[in-house]
Formats: sequence, structure tokens, C-alpha cells
Amino acid sequence: MITLTSDFGSPYPAAMKGVLCAHTDARLVDIAHDFPRQDVRTTAFWLREVFPYFPPATHLVVVDPGVGTDRAALAIRAGEHVLVGPDNGVLAPVARRLAGDAVGAPDDDAQASAGIEPFEIVVDEPESATFHGRDVFAPAAALAHEAGADRLAECEEFVSADGYEDLRFPEPEVRDGDATGEVLVVDGFGNAVTNVPGEMLDGRFGERIAVDGEHVPVAQSYAHVAAGERLVTVGSHGNVELAANRGRGDETFGVGVGNPIELAFE
Amino acid sequence: MITLTSDFGSPYPAAMKGVLCAHTDARLVDIAHDFPRQDVRTTAFWLREVFPYFPPATHLVVVDPGVGTDRAALAIRAGEHVLVGPDNGVLAPVARRLAGDAVGAPDDDAQASAGIEPFEIVVDEPESATFHGRDVFAPAAALAHEAGADRLAECEEFVSADGYEDLRFPEPEVRDGDATGEVLVVDGFGNAVTNVPGEMLDGRFGERIAVDGEHVPVAQSYAHVAAGERLVTVGSHGNVELAANRGRGDETFGVGVGNPIELAFE
Amino acid sequence: MITLTSDFGSPYPAAMKGVLCAHTDARLVDIAHDFPRQDVRTTAFWLREVFPYFPPATHLVVVDPGVGTDRAALAIRAGEHVLVGPDNGVLAPVARRLAGDAVGAPDDDAQASAGIEPFEIVVDEPESATFHGRDVFAPAAALAHEAGADRLAECEEFVSADGYEDLRFPEPEVRDGDATGEVLVVDGFGNAVTNVPGEMLDGRFGERIAVDGEHVPVAQSYAHVAAGERLVTVGSHGNVELAANRGRGDETFGVGVGNPIELAFE
Repeated sequence: MITLTSDFGSPYPAAMKGVLCAHTDARLVDIAHDFPRQDVRTTAFWLREVFPYFPPATHLVVVDPGVGTDRAALAIRAGEHVLVGPDNGVLAPVARRLAGDAVGAPDDDAQASAGIEPFEIVVDEPESATFHGRDVFAPAAALAHEAGADRLAECEEFVSADGYEDLRFPEPEVRDGDATGEVLVVDGFGNAVTNVPGEMLDGRFGERIAVDGEHVPVAQSYAHVAAGERLVTVGSHGNVELAANRGRGDETFGVGVGNPIELAFE
Repeated sequence: MITLTSDFGSPYPAAMKGVLCAHTDARLVDIAHDFPRQDVRTTAFWLREVFPYFPPATHLVVVDPGVGTDRAALAIRAGEHVLVGPDNGVLAPVARRLAGDAVGAPDDDAQASAGIEPFEIVVDEPESATFHGRDVFAPAAALAHEAGADRLAECEEFVSADGYEDLRFPEPEVRDGDATGEVLVVDGFGNAVTNVPGEMLDGRFGERIAVDGEHVPVAQSYAHVAAGERLVTVGSHGNVELAANRGRGDETFGVGVGNPIELAFE
Repeated sequence: MITLTSDFGSPYPAAMKGVLCAHTDARLVDIAHDFPRQDVRTTAFWLREVFPYFPPATHLVVVDPGVGTDRAALAIRAGEHVLVGPDNGVLAPVARRLAGDAVGAPDDDAQASAGIEPFEIVVDEPESATFHGRDVFAPAAALAHEAGADRLAECEEFVSADGYEDLRFPEPEVRDGDATGEVLVVDGFGNAVTNVPGEMLDGRFGERIAVDGEHVPVAQSYAHVAAGERLVTVGSHGNVELAANRGRGDETFGVGVGNPIELAFE
């Protein structure tokens, strides 16, 4: 199976599908092609949340503001998965998570690196300098799929790499009953996903928490407050989320990506 | 085959695909993930129009404003199809239509209920309270697909249910040559789909009809009037539709969902 | 394999998928369903850029402002591919390119016609006059797939056609070091794709070129200029493209589809 992720919108992903279908009969699964343009961090966040639900697969990821420069092209084995994309950090958080799961280490633990093997893709003269998704990464993903995660080293197109660009999400400060964090991403519903672990809200549904000083209900899910009302909940990624029932949390809380957030029980 | 429908936008549907792929090799077909957020009625309308064109399949449907509350989770056998989703009415109209086709009864006929078997999905402690699409409905859809429409009762995860929440579209009043109805949905082209059966226009293409008192051509298709001109036609769902050639019917007629519509031949 | 292309947005493509799945087990691949509404020329451009990357396939294309009129419905064999859609020109440029590749002739060469066989689809009384994608073209695409590109003539539903509506993109005037062209399409990133062949920029990366009199860097790819800066490059389609690094070329150059463009080295 090969999954496809990009910020291409439409119709460029179709050219990648054509190349994949020309090289392999692998099943293709679209993840999303509407990630915010050239937003490496947001894409990295969502990949880390989504790929672990898949069975072992090759994941083609093209969010690539540096296309046509000398940034490397990567194929990374992470546990039983293979990640193919540009060396700009977009693959790093999910590689750690996939490898960590594979070796039984906690998510994002440094030990996870035991399950990670990075390769640089040998690129010679791609047809275009502006569409490596089609001309570099799609052929490499097809090749990786055909070779299998365990045999990338046997492909002359993949050369073992010493390292790759890392990307770390900002760490929250979590204390006893309060926390300082920030908004990592805003999803399509307007839910503002923070970097504060959801455990902070364990056993406290029904109470109120101060968000930047304003008191808001802590609820298990959206419909536990009235339509339009704000709530603080644990999102599906396990983090504290600022939301509004049948509304947009980002707008009702007046926050966006990168905003610092203070959370405090009384 | 498993089809996927939601109001999730992107990238949440990908997590559901991951779960499905981890549980089954079934072919996956996306219906749409951009239904109006939490709009159960509009989604219910389109499912009723689309699913009957599919061969027997399992249909995963997640438009779920009550996620995390005590609304039930359903798996409904409807004819040879299985519908999986929240118990909020979104599955009801299409269940009737699929069952009606199966037993030879007219669409939406009450007799169709002979072909419908509802089950409640046993849910214990899903991983998240806010993403049952991933944690409840996708595993249930995979299970239903693997079991087959005829053997849902044999799965301990599915418990026979007495009933489920119904949803009925408003009925028009159709008289001899005139009708009172309303706009059920507006499609992406701006066509305003009414609840008035298209038979009212049979044999009358080329005539004019009064729409809320204004006279408009009745035409077989859009390009039978000049670009920008309004027309009344029969849409692909078989209902009377207010449209504009190469324009938006909703805007040129000044109507939206829920608007009452008076139609009258002279 | 059957690919699907339309300007339907959502959820109408799902009905076509249902019909296809009911008639054939062919693999389905979405190209795009968000082409500009009823914009035959833009769609024709992208199909010509995308389909050649696919292995032999049946391509269902429904951008059809004349639906329900007497425009013909076509199935065209182009090399080893089959194109199915309305007779409005949308299939013509890609048919020439696919056929040209097949017979070794240059792209878009008139000789390519040797590899093209057009058929008219016999249409009798489709269920709806407004959705031939579902009721005419999808069944025809399934039939063409099952028959195979070489055996369309054996299907009574396909009748050999004398010709079909052509569509030609405007030709640029290219001289020694300067060119007069126009913007053919603007992609989702805002890159303005002209009809001027990229060869004009061969060996000149790092120089400057006058675009309508204003001097702009010629660069191999976007990130070779600073964020927000304009550049002239060769896009993935091989044409000269007006772009901005991490911005929209159409806005920073102030151009749109159909705008004449003067390019001149000094």
C-alpha cells in the first residue's frame, strides 16, 4: 500500500498517481492534498496522528517549499513503514512515532531512533525542477514499495544517510493543575489543538478551567455544552483542545496557531 | 466494498482509512467528506440519491453532531447493503430506499421496512470521545464488511435494536398543474433541488411555469436557455430543480434551503 | 483502470463511482473533480499534462456545459488509452498527445491522428437529461474498459465517428530571445502557466528577463529567490511559468488566464 500526502491541491496529485500506477500495482490511498501550502510543521503534526493507524505501508509525502534546491530527498524506514519525501523535517515526528511503536518504546522517545533507518534518494536530472513529487518522490515511493521496508539498502537508488533534518513540536510546561502551552494546529472544524497532554483533564469533566483567565467548561465531547458554547476537551490526538459545540473554537477563543495558552484549574 | 462519507473535510478521513485498512482488505471508495458540517438532513438526502447506484456494499457514514453523547451507534442492514453510522436520522432515508429496491416495493414505502434490520453497535470505552468515526464506526464497518450483510446478527458487537431515529423530508403538496414545496438542498453548482416530483414537468418542456409568481422557462437541460438565464428542470434525483444555465440557480432565484416554493402552470 | 475527471465538486462524482462499480471491477483513480466549472479549455490543458503519466487506461471526463443538448457523446481510442466524454473539445489535446506518444510522432503533431479512433456513443433515453456523467458516460467507460482499447469497434454501443470537435491552445510567437504568448491557466499555487515553451530559458537561469517590461529573475525553481519574490521558471508541464516563491505568481504579476505576456531577454 502507498499513501499520498501533499499540499498540491488539484490536479497535480493525479500526475503522481499516474507515475505510481505506471511503476507498481500497489493499492493507493489518499491521505490529504490540501495541507496548508508549504506548512511543514502542520503537515508533520497530522502525519504523526494519522499514519500509526495504517498497517505497514509506504507513505509518499510532498510538502516541499525547497523543491529544486539542494535539500536532500529521503526514504526513511520507520518500523515496518517507509516514509518518502523531502528532507525538511516533515517526516521526522511521524518517523519517531512509527519506530517507537515498532520497538515498544514510548512515542517520540529518543530510543525510537533504533527503529529508524534514513536513506538519501539518488536523484539525477529529474525531468522538472519544480515538481519532484512526480519526477523524484513518486518513482522512489514505487521503488520502496516494490523493494519492501526491509530491503531498501539493497536498492542502489537509496544510499544510507547519516541523519536528516529534525522537527520538534514545542514542549508545554505542565504543573500540578495548570499548564502553559501553545496552539499547535487548528483543524477544519476550528478546534484549536494545543500541545498540552489531555491527561491534565483526566477525571475533571464537568469542572471548569481557566483558559487565559476565562472560565470554560471541561467536557468529554462537544455536545456536552449548548450549541455555540465554548469548551475544553481532549481531542482525538490526545491533546487538550479548545472547541465550541457546533462552532469554531479558534474564533470563539480568539486563538490561532502559535498562540500561547495558559490553562489553570482553581 | 466499503464507502466512506463524512463532514470531516481533511485530514481526519485518512485516520478512518487507516483503521479500515488495518482490519480488512475491502476496496474503499470515498463518497464525499465535505458535506455541510453537522448537517444531517442534507447528508441524508445525498446518501439516498447516491448509494442506490452502488452494488451491495458497507457504507460508513459519519456526520455526527452528537459524538460523545449517549446517542446510539448503528449498523443497519438495508437490503443487501449495510449502513454504519450514528443514530441521528442520517441513515434512515437511504435505508428505506435500499430496502425498498430490494423487496420490489416503491421507494420510501413503509413496506420497505421489511428489508431493514437495525443493530446497535456495542461500544466500550472508545479511545477518544470526539472521534468515533475512527474509534467506533470504522472498526464496526470493517467488521460488518467481513461478516457480510446477512450475518450481522452473528457478531456479538451488533445487538438487534428495536428501532432507530427516523428522518423524513417534508412532503410537497402537488395539485393539478401547480404545487407547493420547498428547497431541500442546494448542490455545488447552485441548483436548488426542491421536494416536488419531476413528473409535474412531464411533457411540458418549452412551456413556462410561474415560480413564486415569476414566469420561467421549463427546459429539459441547462443549455436549452441562454447563458445566465433561469430555468426550471428535472434534476438527476428526479425532483424539480431551480437552475441557471452557467450560473447559480440559488442566487438568480434568490432561494436557499428550507425556502417555500410555489410552482404553477397557467 | 478507469480514471475519473469532472467539474462536479461533490457529491455527484460518487454516483458515477457507484455506476462504475456496478458494471466493472476496474480500479478507479480520481484525477480531480474541482476543475473550474464548465471550463473546457482549462480541463483540456490539465488532462494533456496528466494522462500521459498513466499506464494505458480508460479516462472518464465529464466537463459538459452542453449536457442534455444534441452534442455527441464520445469514446476515443488514443494510442492504448480510451477517452470517454462529451464532444466539446475537452478530449482533443490529450488524445493527440497520447496518440503521438503511441506512434512515436511529436506531441500534438497532426500525424498523431493515425493513433486516434473516435466513436460516437449510442445514447438512448438516459434516465436524466442533466447528469449524463452518471447515466451515459460512466456506463460507457465501464463498457470501454471491459472491451479494451482495441475492441471498441466490436461494441454496438460505439459507432465509428467521422470526426470530433477540436480544441487548440493559442500558439505563442517565439523569436530569438523574446516571445509573445499568453497565460493558459493558473494553478492552485497561483503559478501562471504560459503557452511559451520552456526551452526559451535553457541555460539562462540566474539571468533576468523582462516580463511586460519589468525585469524579473530567471530561476530553476521557486526557492532560488527570496520568499515573496517573483521569478520566471519552467513549470512541470515544460512551459514558461510566472511564479512567486511562497506566494502567488498571478497576483504578484497581476495576470490571469488569457492575459497576453511579452518576454524579452536584453
